[in-house]
Amino acid sequence: MPPPDFDAAFRDQFTTLLRWRRDVRHFRPDPLPGGMLRELLALTELAPSVGLSQPWRFAIVGDPARRAMVRASFEACNAEALAGLGGERAGLYARLKLAGLDSAPCHLAVFVDPEPEQGHGLGRRTMPETVAYSAVTAIHTLWLAARAHGVGVGWVSILEPAAVTSALDLPASWRFVAYLCLGYPMDEQEVPELEREGWETRRATGQTVIPR
Amino acid sequence: MPPPDFDAAFRDQFTTLLRWRRDVRHFRPDPLPGGMLRELLALTELAPSVGLSQPWRFAIVGDPARRAMVRASFEACNAEALAGLGGERAGLYARLKLAGLDSAPCHLAVFVDPEPEQGHGLGRRTMPETVAYSAVTAIHTLWLAARAHGVGVGWVSILEPAAVTSALDLPASWRFVAYLCLGYPMDEQEVPELEREGWETRRATGQTVIPR
Repeated sequence: MPPPDFDAAFRDQFTTLLRWRRDVRHFRPDPLPGGMLRELLALTELAPSVGLSQPWRFAIVGDPARRAMVRASFEACNAEALAGLGGERAGLYARLKLAGLDSAPCHLAVFVDPEPEQGHGLGRRTMPETVAYSAVTAIHTLWLAARAHGVGVGWVSILEPAAVTSALDLPASWRFVAYLCLGYPMDEQEVPELEREGWETRRATGQTVIPR
Repeated sequence: MPPPDFDAAFRDQFTTLLRWRRDVRHFRPDPLPGGMLRELLALTELAPSVGLSQPWRFAIVGDPARRAMVRASFEACNAEALAGLGGERAGLYARLKLAGLDSAPCHLAVFVDPEPEQGHGLGRRTMPETVAYSAVTAIHTLWLAARAHGVGVGWVSILEPAAVTSALDLPASWRFVAYLCLGYPMDEQEVPELEREGWETRRATGQTVIPR
């Protein structure tokens, strides 16, 4: 197969995809079409991974009791985060919707095996965190592919990793990376919800680039 | 602006982009066109980040003395990795080319400010590693956008983080995430070099998906 040539029209559409990928917290309850989740997961095998180790592990969380345990961890961590804030920020934080756990039809918990046999350890000796980084590129792959299908993804990080690992009865040696909610979004937005709600504004990258 | 509708043709091309993104170690010495790097870096501001914190910091490494210090760290770490291997694996490892540091025209070191003011701490209290994860989604964004321009990226992780931070005279509090080589690849491949060289083979994701 000859190498592909990507043209300006594709690059423009790809930029549009980046612009309209959102961290979604408001989902319609409709389930994803049959096969959609498997199709998205299959694309993650194309993500880069340290030493070609493919260390990501995806738990599809459907059991209501397990979901309730994850939700309880979110509630506890969210209450602690709120308690740590003062004044105006506390009021603003309390008004934010930070997870779509109740309405999202699909829940996906992402872990890594921190010492995978696959890859034979290549590239992670001095930087073992690259194993988790590999899972993050897999998540980002799934996120963009989902948005290209009109499916929203929300990343929930206000969780206690050990609580999630235990709720899902997965090996304690695995490292919890992310909890993802997937489903059709209530609406499509070009501006992040945290920006629309006045929590933070995005900056141009100029200030984060340093000549050396 | 109305939300975009992505069609099957775009999704097919996006999948092709994922399939042909490679970790590149063999570069042509031609420089990137003027403005290309800034264009790629500007796209990273569209990557997801915890609490909208945009914690990534990109050092464009041009100074030959600093590049030599980074290369020295790679040499040392690579020699140690080789020394830790036995038999057949050692021979195979020694034959692999694991970095394009000598030929890549553009070097980019990626760091994060682990406690950024921007974002007001949202989402990282129980999972501080999400700050580094945000930088990884920015790297993956740049990686895919580069490939859509025919530009290759190689991620070098066989480095001592403290040595790189020191070589680049950056704050010791920053966390080193990745060292990227950018340039036009010597050739385009659909199969990862580690697979072509017999180090590892990619597996289907079926085995990494767990129902819960």
